[in-house]
Amino acid sequence: MRNIRLKIKFDGSRYCGWQIQKNGITVQQCINNAVSAITGERINVIGCGRTDSGVHASCYFASFKTQSTIPAERIVYALNAHLPDDIVCTAAEDVSDDFDACRSAKKKHYTYRILNSGISDPFLYPFVYLVKFPLNVEEMKKAANAFLGTHDFVGFASVGFTVKTTVRTIYSLDISKKGDLIEIDVTGDGFLYNMVRIIAGTLIAVGSGKIKSEDMERIIASCDRTQAGITAPAKGLCLTEVIY
Amino acid sequence: MRNIRLKIKFDGSRYCGWQIQKNGITVQQCINNAVSAITGERINVIGCGRTDSGVHASCYFASFKTQSTIPAERIVYALNAHLPDDIVCTAAEDVSDDFDACRSAKKKHYTYRILNSGISDPFLYPFVYLVKFPLNVEEMKKAANAFLGTHDFVGFASVGFTVKTTVRTIYSLDISKKGDLIEIDVTGDGFLYNMVRIIAGTLIAVGSGKIKSEDMERIIASCDRTQAGITAPAKGLCLTEVIY
Repeated sequence: MRNIRLKIKFDGSRYCGWQIQKNGITVQQCINNAVSAITGERINVIGCGRTDSGVHASCYFASFKTQSTIPAERIVYALNAHLPDDIVCTAAEDVSDDFDACRSAKKKHYTYRILNSGISDPFLYPFVYLVKFPLNVEEMKKAANAFLGTHDFVGFASVGFTVKTTVRTIYSLDISKKGDLIEIDVTGDGFLYNMVRIIAGTLIAVGSGKIKSEDMERIIASCDRTQAGITAPAKGLCLTEVIY
Repeated sequence: MRNIRLKIKFDGSRYCGWQIQKNGITVQQCINNAVSAITGERINVIGCGRTDSGVHASCYFASFKTQSTIPAERIVYALNAHLPDDIVCTAAEDVSDDFDACRSAKKKHYTYRILNSGISDPFLYPFVYLVKFPLNVEEMKKAANAFLGTHDFVGFASVGFTVKTTVRTIYSLDISKKGDLIEIDVTGDGFLYNMVRIIAGTLIAVGSGKIKSEDMERIIASCDRTQAGITAPAKGLCLTEVIY
């Protein structure tokens, strides 16, 4: 059996997230259909993680085992012929038998995009969260430092998940501003359910003055969801890198 | 009566072009509805030009006369509250009584975007024409020079238009490449029906070797539509500037 790793990009606007479900079209379902069509096997691909409904990915990995002999470089073109315009396979390669797109992932990098303007942008609106009140980026940067390192992030998770531990390590959390576009870039060993969106919502609350940057350490340590900010909308979130 | 000029941005994907028509939703219809809603008058705005179905605009102007006393800066926010997400008003100002968004336009600048790659991009595909065979940009640049100046461009127009003259002046025609993205930027005093898309289709034919760059002068002078290239798809085209 070969083990194939796919690199994928998708605009998540139309999808109920990655994972297959009964009541809605998902990215995994589209990939399964395409992979099954080209291999002639009934295949269920393993994704590098669940992404929420409406979340995008400029870099997502999936893996599957197959007996097909199609050369890896041909798989890309064959898959794209079976995928909708908003999901694209950009690379495929043979990997070692023990590779698993989910369990082998060491770090993930997400980008949360905010359009900080009184006026929307028709070309960006599917990929950003429009925040109309002015945000203080310097205060957001100060608050971001409190997230670095290993913490129990249970206060930054939505209910409805089951995990062994709510302790996670954040390696970097950078905030940049270019024109009206603010980007929050966060890299960690993994993220709890809605964690990046709650971090973004909390940093927005800091930027607007609702939460003070010097209170961030205390808020994280409180392990209390009600101390943190809102869960920012899915459409601003994009998985931008996965490190194996 | 006041005369108001609106600056507008729109993603044209969902629209049957600018101009009102019976069998489809148009950008003008959306603007008319929004302007009528905020002024309480029944208003038909004048657009700076007809754009084809599916064509985008990062800068479009429209004007209308009104007895409303809403301050110009409030009009922007009021209109956006009545517009769909893919049409945004970015500015409004009082202009002199004789201003007409269509007749007062002196120059227009269009950008045609080509993604020259074997693989699509889910974030760009609504705004680019995907050309999978490699294009020779240097040859395209050579051919572009032949378009500069004043010519009868009847060979670069689709049928179904009525105009006094098919003579137009092109002030600049620049081609640039950044990664896989090729942009054709053209500025002229006006353009015939489908003219920019036929110029783009012809330059693509040059880039692929189907038409020789040294034949371009002769092809323009022939005034023969069949000598030029295809009409490139609408979704790659964007009106990027209008000079009054």
